[in-house]
Amino acid sequence: MTEQRYTLLLSCPDRVGIVAAVSGFVAQHNGIIVEASYHTDQETRQFFMRQELRADSLPFGAARLRERFLEVAERFQMVWRVTDSAVRKRVVLLVSRQGHCLDDLLHRWRSGELEVDIPCVISNHEDLRGFVEWHGIPFHCVETNDKGAAFARISRLFDEAAGDVMVLARFMQIVPPDMCERYAGRIINIHHGFLPSFAGARPYHQAYRRGVKLIGATCHYVTNELDEGPIIEQDTVRIDHGDTVEDMVRYGRDIEKAVLARGLRYHVEDRVLVCGIKTIVFR
Amino acid sequence: MTEQRYTLLLSCPDRVGIVAAVSGFVAQHNGIIVEASYHTDQETRQFFMRQELRADSLPFGAARLRERFLEVAERFQMVWRVTDSAVRKRVVLLVSRQGHCLDDLLHRWRSGELEVDIPCVISNHEDLRGFVEWHGIPFHCVETNDKGAAFARISRLFDEAAGDVMVLARFMQIVPPDMCERYAGRIINIHHGFLPSFAGARPYHQAYRRGVKLIGATCHYVTNELDEGPIIEQDTVRIDHGDTVEDMVRYGRDIEKAVLARGLRYHVEDRVLVCGIKTIVFR
Amino acid sequence: MTEQRYTLLLSCPDRVGIVAAVSGFVAQHNGIIVEASYHTDQETRQFFMRQELRADSLPFGAARLRERFLEVAERFQMVWRVTDSAVRKRVVLLVSRQGHCLDDLLHRWRSGELEVDIPCVISNHEDLRGFVEWHGIPFHCVETNDKGAAFARISRLFDEAAGDVMVLARFMQIVPPDMCERYAGRIINIHHGFLPSFAGARPYHQAYRRGVKLIGATCHYVTNELDEGPIIEQDTVRIDHGDTVEDMVRYGRDIEKAVLARGLRYHVEDRVLVCGIKTIVFR
Amino acid sequence: MTEQRYTLLLSCPDRVGIVAAVSGFVAQHNGIIVEASYHTDQETRQFFMRQELRADSLPFGAARLRERFLEVAERFQMVWRVTDSAVRKRVVLLVSRQGHCLDDLLHRWRSGELEVDIPCVISNHEDLRGFVEWHGIPFHCVETNDKGAAFARISRLFDEAAGDVMVLARFMQIVPPDMCERYAGRIINIHHGFLPSFAGARPYHQAYRRGVKLIGATCHYVTNELDEGPIIEQDTVRIDHGDTVEDMVRYGRDIEKAVLARGLRYHVEDRVLVCGIKTIVFR
Repeated sequence: MTEQRYTLLLSCPDRVGIVAAVSGFVAQHNGIIVEASYHTDQETRQFFMRQELRADSLPFGAARLRERFLEVAERFQMVWRVTDSAVRKRVVLLVSRQGHCLDDLLHRWRSGELEVDIPCVISNHEDLRGFVEWHGIPFHCVETNDKGAAFARISRLFDEAAGDVMVLARFMQIVPPDMCERYAGRIINIHHGFLPSFAGARPYHQAYRRGVKLIGATCHYVTNELDEGPIIEQDTVRIDHGDTVEDMVRYGRDIEKAVLARGLRYHVEDRVLVCGIKTIVFR
Repeated sequence: MTEQRYTLLLSCPDRVGIVAAVSGFVAQHNGIIVEASYHTDQETRQFFMRQELRADSLPFGAARLRERFLEVAERFQMVWRVTDSAVRKRVVLLVSRQGHCLDDLLHRWRSGELEVDIPCVISNHEDLRGFVEWHGIPFHCVETNDKGAAFARISRLFDEAAGDVMVLARFMQIVPPDMCERYAGRIINIHHGFLPSFAGARPYHQAYRRGVKLIGATCHYVTNELDEGPIIEQDTVRIDHGDTVEDMVRYGRDIEKAVLARGLRYHVEDRVLVCGIKTIVFR
Repeated sequence: MTEQRYTLLLSCPDRVGIVAAVSGFVAQHNGIIVEASYHTDQETRQFFMRQELRADSLPFGAARLRERFLEVAERFQMVWRVTDSAVRKRVVLLVSRQGHCLDDLLHRWRSGELEVDIPCVISNHEDLRGFVEWHGIPFHCVETNDKGAAFARISRLFDEAAGDVMVLARFMQIVPPDMCERYAGRIINIHHGFLPSFAGARPYHQAYRRGVKLIGATCHYVTNELDEGPIIEQDTVRIDHGDTVEDMVRYGRDIEKAVLARGLRYHVEDRVLVCGIKTIVFR
Repeated sequence: MTEQRYTLLLSCPDRVGIVAAVSGFVAQHNGIIVEASYHTDQETRQFFMRQELRADSLPFGAARLRERFLEVAERFQMVWRVTDSAVRKRVVLLVSRQGHCLDDLLHRWRSGELEVDIPCVISNHEDLRGFVEWHGIPFHCVETNDKGAAFARISRLFDEAAGDVMVLARFMQIVPPDMCERYAGRIINIHHGFLPSFAGARPYHQAYRRGVKLIGATCHYVTNELDEGPIIEQDTVRIDHGDTVEDMVRYGRDIEKAVLARGLRYHVEDRVLVCGIKTIVFR
């Protein structure tokens, strides 16, 4: 278990003195900075910053830190938040029949690598119930014949679970627009293609027909535009003419797992800031 | 310098006994096989084969090898050819103002790594004349104000140079359809994007705006369909939010060089067979 | 499930006519070759070959295939074997406390990707019993205070399970020389370092102290020489100065899983031939 | 050409308030921070920092910036320097017969990608004179029969050229200890192996014999201990059993070029700080 930390995430119009003001504030309270990253978007001139502080270096807790920081934040018109590593994010996993991403995330969770709570797993199939329940995690099967009812129930389950983020870990259903809006920046998908190539259905078949020499996977936030949301993480793997679609599916599973695990980790550690259709990932 | 080799390349409808017939033929003449590769395309049931033989193991030369092989080739309705490593391919390079791919290929050529002849370099700008001529290679500058005349002249220069393959080493002009058809399978382009994403102009700008986390380059045969020809080789490189378009252009140059050099090498060593809009690359 | 296949693996002194003889034999029985690969080792002039045949294309089964092939094999003094994809390999997994490789392999097995039987899992700790037994796989905990007795028991368990291959999936004990010899070519280890760098204990600590910019993992056959056995597969991942040993351990787990899964797959599909301290992997 | 920038590089014992003091100093003079990076070494508790400032945002030049910063530097016992992007580093290249790294660096230089001055190239062979002189760069051939005299002359040439950094771009001679000490942190080598594996001579032959599945290259500072200096950058490329030593040499050239170019760029942009036998590279 890592030591307790507070993470300050902010963005504001770029100008002189932001870093000085923030680090001056931290120094004034003897705060120890463990990690710090900045970025200024060239097009919008928006400034983005992330600072991770050792909780035990400050003379107060997260609530008081937020109160005290308010003055700095207002001076620079910041959009900001402070998170506390002691408050674990609540991650709800959605899955269909293919269990590779689910298996990968659950192993990371039970080995202590992924420091989150998993209040429940939701699926449109029964296949993975036994495996999930062995972990002591509630498993909800939601029939998707009536899409409206299904997604209403999924929202309800997510809200009842006090979920912070919903992860579509190979959940083969399209999330309706109203739900995308309601949970903007809180639904993460793994697409089994190297976006923007091969969006939509059966990307490995598309890649096979096109004869590409690398295939990929993309972890992104879900928005109204199918497979067009801000990309958090991607990767590719080499294939050749001898590989069938089945081989590509098999290689693909390995990059899907890796890319989703990295993308989710960045999100959970508050390393991702959305800037239009792009993300800033402070690794 | 490698020992002299004959390379047999063939394709035919798949059936039992092709490998046995070909390797029986080779063994009957005491031929030593240095490399052998096969592939059967699942959709068309077409069989593809490449065999590299040590020239000194055979009791005859390339001409006689072709004569003798004819019987086997006809029995299986093969499309085939035999090439001789002692006959160097003649590679004509086309380039605009950016010299990184040209520089890379010329170094591989003058260091003996790329065993080809380069009868001339053609450009629509004068910028790289001095560098090319230092190598003792003729440099032709072809004005492209009148596209028709320009490409007519390029064809003529290529034919006069007895070119085997034309390499668009960052040549920023679209080759007209009739020329694509005339030299089908003999024009190789390097596209500075990971096709099929970001086809057309300014792929790095497109990639920057989309916020992808990897950029790529694609080496492909040129066809009538812009950036849609059979892909020979591709690669990607990781970028992040801090990289500007200029940074992407810089990283991109390195993968463009590498991908074009590999793709051209495969072509020159007769390792590439075209199958519809895909390639088989026997590495 | 893939169609049934016979795999012919052989090696013999290199000479003219081997491929012709083998493919002639196959063609004579109307066998359909699905994959074929050859290699001649430059130093020993030993020839290596692998052919995968569709079982249903032959007029007889594996036993008769072996009988009939004997004549060809003897003519060329081959060391050879024929395996049958319908006869699943029996893989015994050995593990200590870290479960990431075990979890990864068990998921591949239960999803049908890894087509083997797992008769049992052996560990020197109780930690992973529940997870293994949930899969319906027997779990044996072997105390290692008395090394001699422990490895005697492990051998016995492996023999009773009729194991084909023993996989040290992060098993933190050194296998004694006599056992290495007895099961030569049948014990596969995953080393959490990029061999030959950082052999022995705590490779990530060694890598951290040396300040390397990439770390790796190595899948190899176990021999008497610690971490010196023939390498089957390796991979690396980029790190930087900001990564602690703990971060390296975390990245390392992901490449260990991937490298072991690939290496084991090659072994199980009879793609690996040992040639001195090197391997030939016909991918 | 990029806008003019000042880069502040510093290290000091870690304590609260360093970032605040430095960024407060910058803000007080209305300095615009373009990039900022920090790192604390866990073992030595030494703090490292790099800040890149827009020169035109400050009311004074580099000399005055150094004067003014002195007070902050002394307060925290900093080892520090300020560099000015308008003052180009002077890079002396040393090369033997193989020209791939030289060619690569010269192309980056003449295309404007590598913003340095190259006052001369030194070699122990005449082979590359013509190519270097075509660039208008003086070429000095230094016979190495008498090592002492040769390295004395190389030092003298370097000093006369007012060199900032010496790059061994495949220079196949061992630099003597006194020269390593005299130019500590100013001599960069590219080793054609993945250190610490395969140090010393003929690393590709070593790799071939060991049967590794990836080969690599390493860019490092030269110290008294052969191939043991702080590593700046490394990379690997996949090979297989079919690759000969010659193939490995060929693949190797491509990673040597890439790794040296990246390593040199980091050095030239003042992104590298040495910490014992490790480097901190603020990319």
